[in-house]
Amino acid sequence: MENIMIDMDQAYDESIEKIFDLLKEKKYFQCRDELLKHNEVEIAEMLIDIRREFDLQKMVVLFRALPKDISVDVFAELSVDDQVDIINIITDPEIKYIIDELDFDDMIDVLEELPANIVDKIMDKTPKNDRKLINQFLRYKEDSAGSLMTPDYINLKKTDTVREALDHIKQVGLDSETIYTCYVLDRGRKLIGVISLRTLVISDDDLVVGDLMHDDPVVCHVDDDQEEVSDQFTRFGYLALPIVDSEYRLVGIVTVDDALDVIEEETTEDIERMGGVIDTTDKEYLDMSVLQHVKARLPWLFLLMCSYLITGGMISSFEAALSQVICLVSYMPMLMGTGGNSGTQASTLVIRGMAVDEIELSDFLKVMWKEARIGLIVGIVLSALNFFRIIWFDHEPTQIALTVCLAMTVIVVVAKLFGSMLPMIAKKVGIDPALMAGPMMASITDMISLGTYFLMASWFLNI
Amino acid sequence: MENIMIDMDQAYDESIEKIFDLLKEKKYFQCRDELLKHNEVEIAEMLIDIRREFDLQKMVVLFRALPKDISVDVFAELSVDDQVDIINIITDPEIKYIIDELDFDDMIDVLEELPANIVDKIMDKTPKNDRKLINQFLRYKEDSAGSLMTPDYINLKKTDTVREALDHIKQVGLDSETIYTCYVLDRGRKLIGVISLRTLVISDDDLVVGDLMHDDPVVCHVDDDQEEVSDQFTRFGYLALPIVDSEYRLVGIVTVDDALDVIEEETTEDIERMGGVIDTTDKEYLDMSVLQHVKARLPWLFLLMCSYLITGGMISSFEAALSQVICLVSYMPMLMGTGGNSGTQASTLVIRGMAVDEIELSDFLKVMWKEARIGLIVGIVLSALNFFRIIWFDHEPTQIALTVCLAMTVIVVVAKLFGSMLPMIAKKVGIDPALMAGPMMASITDMISLGTYFLMASWFLNI
Repeated sequence: MENIMIDMDQAYDESIEKIFDLLKEKKYFQCRDELLKHNEVEIAEMLIDIRREFDLQKMVVLFRALPKDISVDVFAELSVDDQVDIINIITDPEIKYIIDELDFDDMIDVLEELPANIVDKIMDKTPKNDRKLINQFLRYKEDSAGSLMTPDYINLKKTDTVREALDHIKQVGLDSETIYTCYVLDRGRKLIGVISLRTLVISDDDLVVGDLMHDDPVVCHVDDDQEEVSDQFTRFGYLALPIVDSEYRLVGIVTVDDALDVIEEETTEDIERMGGVIDTTDKEYLDMSVLQHVKARLPWLFLLMCSYLITGGMISSFEAALSQVICLVSYMPMLMGTGGNSGTQASTLVIRGMAVDEIELSDFLKVMWKEARIGLIVGIVLSALNFFRIIWFDHEPTQIALTVCLAMTVIVVVAKLFGSMLPMIAKKVGIDPALMAGPMMASITDMISLGTYFLMASWFLNI
Repeated sequence: MENIMIDMDQAYDESIEKIFDLLKEKKYFQCRDELLKHNEVEIAEMLIDIRREFDLQKMVVLFRALPKDISVDVFAELSVDDQVDIINIITDPEIKYIIDELDFDDMIDVLEELPANIVDKIMDKTPKNDRKLINQFLRYKEDSAGSLMTPDYINLKKTDTVREALDHIKQVGLDSETIYTCYVLDRGRKLIGVISLRTLVISDDDLVVGDLMHDDPVVCHVDDDQEEVSDQFTRFGYLALPIVDSEYRLVGIVTVDDALDVIEEETTEDIERMGGVIDTTDKEYLDMSVLQHVKARLPWLFLLMCSYLITGGMISSFEAALSQVICLVSYMPMLMGTGGNSGTQASTLVIRGMAVDEIELSDFLKVMWKEARIGLIVGIVLSALNFFRIIWFDHEPTQIALTVCLAMTVIVVVAKLFGSMLPMIAKKVGIDPALMAGPMMASITDMISLGTYFLMASWFLNI
């Protein structure tokens, strides 16, 4: 009984190896059969692997070989880039079938990325009512709650009985994005309550929706940023959130699976910005060309490099003194490095704390006071260790040790203060705090570190 | 109609201000009434704010003043630290009520953190069967799938009709963690399929569960890391995942709201490690004492500082040459900084890419090849800009410019290679790749940068 558990990833890896081999021999039908052993998410992942290993053509051949109903589910799981590339190759009737069968929110995502002439062609064949709705949804800003939502929700009336509600759900349930949360609207389509399918299923048939519903639901506004929407999911753990317009009319819902995608996307953006990579175009690392990578990295590197004009200038103006006491140079990397690391620690904690709403701008003074004390303790401990090292290990005079150690303490404290302050100031003035992390912090603390070091040196060594 | 939308956050802020004022005047009943205007998640957040602004006592007074049924829901939303502190203050009957009413998975989380004598006291009053189950769940490793799951799922038989299934759900639905995904087990409790409530609700009453169920469900193993579990939620967008033991028996389920918490927790850990903060004890930034912060930051700073013994040594041994051509010193920070930033960019992308399964270890050579080309282009562009600056702006001789620029190109390429290589090697040998980011990268690239620089200098300048 040992091996009864089949490792999912292992099964995936074995299948994809087999498919690669079959593709090399052009055995497309056997490839298709191998693909069909998996669910739609895995088939989509396999198609992406196939494109990466071979080319777009091979991917499209296999995509077209899938049974029609499965091909739509697979299509929905692909990245928008892959979707657009496929649409540019397949025939108009194939496009129409896919567009018709996609969930509304997935369809909008595809339409947003397609060239205008293809969109027009698709819209021509769409019934007038749908066209109006599609146009409305296409107008919502990218990354807004509106761009995430679907209009396919279940709405109930306050006066419905549980039996009537369940019958209604049975009729329209197949076409709804979710049936587990239902929305109660008044005549003006204003949202007056939500009720879960769980409540309906476990309640007596004759009870009335208005008496069972939760009448003060958490909502998001159609113009809210998608990050606010995903934050509410993390906060409340709901399966769906209603999205309302400025007059509290329900315009759509967002489901938790879409929130999961937003969380992954926003976290990746945050982490990449914290690491000094700006604008990676939502593509996966391996799918970005070398030039796209250069574009995402060079500007920031260049900008930060310019900041070293100042650091360089500081050294130049201190050159005469340095050549007198050349051993000062050997402690420069340590002071700059430790300053940078201290600042990075503080900025990382504050940026993440603000991202998960643990730190508010109003906590500014509390954070400063905490960092000042942390910096002082850390700085003194590191300085003390250094003092002994410089005296007994490096055999340098006490003045040198004092210079380095006092500089170290000041640098750590100031780096901690700047590291925590800058992300908060950035947020206040509307810049993404994530930019105030690692690389930016290193450049700023390098200036602070050198300035402090040279100041201490000129005091203690009279140079 | 302009102001009909009430901003949730604003309502929260106004309430908490009011509560603080009322608490200062010791008007506890009015405080309670103000709290009760909000849902359980917000009440929990307010209690945490109250503790931070005043003290634990005030928080507990208000917690006890809540109606019993609400107090349990609020309790479930608090952090484990707050939960344990509350339990240490309230009476035994109060503890018993809370423990009895909590969802099974929340109860296990609390029991795990309580001192053994309190757990024993609680277990004494628990029926024998429950006690056995609790003990089983307490044995699952922290951060494993087993520690996340709940045994309160709905199980159906293959031979049930839709009507029978729905009746069963109606009976037991109130006590289940979710009723939206139901699990079909054989006589040996082995998982043979899953069926969604949606399928049951929209299907005819006489159909049989075995014909409707999905019989190859995605599962996780009870010993899987919690990160693997949350990855499957992001990948498949399900509302719940079944957790099986080594013999494919269903032992529990994990729901998407718990996965959301795991994602936030794991992302925070990753980001903090990338920023050089190790082991922050799951507490919020503001709730950690200064000494806890020092403990989370000092060891890593110290370790990295030691690496600068090497950098310092390199400079010392090159001291004579440096004092000959002192202007070389002024380009040191730029080269070290740009090297660090280049390495950080690469390591950030690779660490994140591996975390979201976009980059596999088998992509090693592909990644290296990509980074080498990116590094070469970025390095040459930055070097070219520097060349002109050094010649025309700094008026240094061509040999100096050549030294700096060739060093720059080599440093950027090598930093990109190391930056992408180290996280992958770390993963291979079982170290968290996130540790190979910012601060660690800065220390390593500082050594690379200085070594390369001095090597170039001794070639070009014959020193």
